[in-house]
Amino acid sequence: MVKIITRKIKDVEKLENALLIEELPGIGHVGRLAAEHLVHEFNGEKFLELFCYDFPPQVLVKDDGTIEYMCASFYRIEEPKPMIIVVGNTQALSPIGQYHLSEEIVKIGIEYGANFVYTFGGFGTGKISEEIKVYGATTKKELAEKIKEYGIVFRTDGGGIVGAAGLMLLFADLNNIPGICLMGETPGYFIDPNAAKAVLEKFGKIENIEINLEELEKRAKGMEEFFDKIRKFEEEMIKNLQQQKKPAHDDDLRYIG
Amino acid sequence: MVKIITRKIKDVEKLENALLIEELPGIGHVGRLAAEHLVHEFNGEKFLELFCYDFPPQVLVKDDGTIEYMCASFYRIEEPKPMIIVVGNTQALSPIGQYHLSEEIVKIGIEYGANFVYTFGGFGTGKISEEIKVYGATTKKELAEKIKEYGIVFRTDGGGIVGAAGLMLLFADLNNIPGICLMGETPGYFIDPNAAKAVLEKFGKIENIEINLEELEKRAKGMEEFFDKIRKFEEEMIKNLQQQKKPAHDDDLRYIG
Amino acid sequence: MVKIITRKIKDVEKLENALLIEELPGIGHVGRLAAEHLVHEFNGEKFLELFCYDFPPQVLVKDDGTIEYMCASFYRIEEPKPMIIVVGNTQALSPIGQYHLSEEIVKIGIEYGANFVYTFGGFGTGKISEEIKVYGATTKKELAEKIKEYGIVFRTDGGGIVGAAGLMLLFADLNNIPGICLMGETPGYFIDPNAAKAVLEKFGKIENIEINLEELEKRAKGMEEFFDKIRKFEEEMIKNLQQQKKPAHDDDLRYIG
Amino acid sequence: MVKIITRKIKDVEKLENALLIEELPGIGHVGRLAAEHLVHEFNGEKFLELFCYDFPPQVLVKDDGTIEYMCASFYRIEEPKPMIIVVGNTQALSPIGQYHLSEEIVKIGIEYGANFVYTFGGFGTGKISEEIKVYGATTKKELAEKIKEYGIVFRTDGGGIVGAAGLMLLFADLNNIPGICLMGETPGYFIDPNAAKAVLEKFGKIENIEINLEELEKRAKGMEEFFDKIRKFEEEMIKNLQQQKKPAHDDDLRYIG
Repeated sequence: MVKIITRKIKDVEKLENALLIEELPGIGHVGRLAAEHLVHEFNGEKFLELFCYDFPPQVLVKDDGTIEYMCASFYRIEEPKPMIIVVGNTQALSPIGQYHLSEEIVKIGIEYGANFVYTFGGFGTGKISEEIKVYGATTKKELAEKIKEYGIVFRTDGGGIVGAAGLMLLFADLNNIPGICLMGETPGYFIDPNAAKAVLEKFGKIENIEINLEELEKRAKGMEEFFDKIRKFEEEMIKNLQQQKKPAHDDDLRYIG
Repeated sequence: MVKIITRKIKDVEKLENALLIEELPGIGHVGRLAAEHLVHEFNGEKFLELFCYDFPPQVLVKDDGTIEYMCASFYRIEEPKPMIIVVGNTQALSPIGQYHLSEEIVKIGIEYGANFVYTFGGFGTGKISEEIKVYGATTKKELAEKIKEYGIVFRTDGGGIVGAAGLMLLFADLNNIPGICLMGETPGYFIDPNAAKAVLEKFGKIENIEINLEELEKRAKGMEEFFDKIRKFEEEMIKNLQQQKKPAHDDDLRYIG
Repeated sequence: MVKIITRKIKDVEKLENALLIEELPGIGHVGRLAAEHLVHEFNGEKFLELFCYDFPPQVLVKDDGTIEYMCASFYRIEEPKPMIIVVGNTQALSPIGQYHLSEEIVKIGIEYGANFVYTFGGFGTGKISEEIKVYGATTKKELAEKIKEYGIVFRTDGGGIVGAAGLMLLFADLNNIPGICLMGETPGYFIDPNAAKAVLEKFGKIENIEINLEELEKRAKGMEEFFDKIRKFEEEMIKNLQQQKKPAHDDDLRYIG
Repeated sequence: MVKIITRKIKDVEKLENALLIEELPGIGHVGRLAAEHLVHEFNGEKFLELFCYDFPPQVLVKDDGTIEYMCASFYRIEEPKPMIIVVGNTQALSPIGQYHLSEEIVKIGIEYGANFVYTFGGFGTGKISEEIKVYGATTKKELAEKIKEYGIVFRTDGGGIVGAAGLMLLFADLNNIPGICLMGETPGYFIDPNAAKAVLEKFGKIENIEINLEELEKRAKGMEEFFDKIRKFEEEMIKNLQQQKKPAHDDDLRYIG
């Protein structure tokens, strides 16, 4: 068991026939870019925060001296279509945590009116493609046939979908609601707005929603800067940890207090 | 504690004096081959699926765009002898998960009428033997003496049986029902239909069941192709993970969006 | 879930508007030095011990043959300001344990009258600075602005605060009480009384408390000796573990019993 | 939380003022040798088995085809002094498991009449000593002073006692009963009957019990053979695991079924 708690930000009305759209950080940050774009374009309203005791045990410090918690935020959109969008800054660390987290997100989504699950992600190929394919996977054969008509392709390598993007489909199915995972082909080693664009284009067509994609690239740029910071912080931490293990008798390194 | 949930596929009647036969993936996939063969030969009817939160946190994508979950499926056979066969595509990842999983499988088996446990597995020797021995282990001295008469041999190396194949015997014993583990000698590094055949031959003799083994080899071939796919997927994932860690400033690797 | 138990050392009255001040071992032992100094200077009274099942599974042997447990001790101070100070000799080992531990410490703090959380720590830079900066982070924008006036600086590297020092701010916020983390700049690889001094000076100014810092350096010296011992013990354990794995047939190494 | 279950082997009467003596495998198997010797010498009666879901997920196969489970067995002795002796063939694998296991053993001990805890172990020095010291640690200062009179020495290295031997003292103390740990000096890399003898001699003196130590050495010999087997099995398993990872296309390694 992994404890998960939530904090209500705002009382909101339950939606009807809403799409639950998940993104937690993954390959190329494709899902994050896509889901955040939807939140911005359709004025998503944040109504809930979720904290999982299997998230990294840390907080992030912002430039203004306040703190950003490791959490998954739930946003609510009414138009052009009811949607609940879950945007997180981390995945759960352990396999068991990932199961509990995915189960809880689906449970909350249903509580607030969702009856369909989408998960967005990147499909890392390690190389740059001229034409960006969007790979799909669904909980039902009819759905697979439907999305195939929109040019979504299926993998034939027996591969899997790791983490929340895959497990949320399991819990959708166990709750008797259908689910689709869309993965944009991406080299995988940088923030990839093109893969996110490709995913949102297919999503828009399937759901018959017009999505203005102009600002997506700008958003990718900002996110890249953010992750550059995080990476530097992590490198620094590792360096410090190594230095902590140096002998404490290293007298010439000590200053006089 | 590790959460385990089930999904009923079909309402079925409780069996009487049924054998509970387990296979989760192991050395040489001997157990899987043997148990799947029984399901096919005796028209096993799937009635329950089990999901353990300590299974790998992923789903597998099939060629038709639908998903295969990590799970253990329960099959029911009435003739030639009441049997409940549990076939899974994974073991639990952690030691604690393996205990809970084995306990739950035995509990469900008893609920549906089992009063005897069999676990099938491979005994990896790392080399090819001319004559394939079947090694056994039992929860009771009388049983050990009985299976010895059928040419089943006992190890004298103090060795153990790791994972569900061993722990299910513990939980059988704790529930006061007897259990036998049969392990076919196998080189251990490929799908081994011969070891599975040897196990099923002994099983058939002990339980006095006629088992047609003709199709076993064909089945092994298909399974091999499946695992080849999985292996390629895993290699790819590792490659991608490595590429993700490359510096994001690697400008010449970026395409123009 | 990680089990946490407490042992009451003394019945004490609930404080009013107390500061909950946490230190568990961290970079440069800055927090520990600072918090222990407060306990000594203001005659902190120990009233509770906390044991977390995710602490290292060991006890420490003292020179007099008695045992020191891995635990976090709660001290109570009435003057010059109500404070509850938590001093531990370890952090929780796993991420999940760190969440539960931080949650429990905040919960107990509130139970005994705290309505404000401070966490002290070191900010490892790997190098010696002429002027020791104190870095801060807070749960609220107004607080950040307030502490900025006292010369506390904010990081602009997107970095984080790992472990209880960070998570206690999360649980403070989830319990609707404010929190501040103060981190003294430190090389990070030795017990650093100067960083602890810098932290306590800022803390004293913010809270308008006079703190005599004379004995801090002496205390640092004693703590250094203690950690030298621990380190030697760990090295020895590793050495022994390696020796345990030597072949048991190494006959010439055996003595005649 | 880690699940722990027990199986009653025999209904027995509660003892009065019994010593709870624990040994789980450790350095030099000193504790195991000492505790098993007590069981044999004083005709210990097995009345309970304990299974922890954090024990290694395996069973051991005996030469006669039956199974030995990973478990801790409780023995009851009435004369020359009431004792409950816990002998196990494994420690819990994770830190959290070790806490729960130690807590449960003390709880059961108290239930069956114990009001004093002894833990036996080895203190690995990596070298052979002419005179074998017995190191001690206690939950109370008076006890420490008492055992010092019997020539038991205290470590001055700030070192610790890792695993159940240490944690059982914590849980004794939390249950308000006293505890002593006795550790025989041992090179640590083979089964060491001399260290076990030294521990039992001191134990006998403190508790004023006559213990015939003649058979101890013979017992050590038998145990050595058993652990040799286990080690070979583990080596084999590792070898097999490595072979499993060989490419499955290695056609010339396949035999014709």
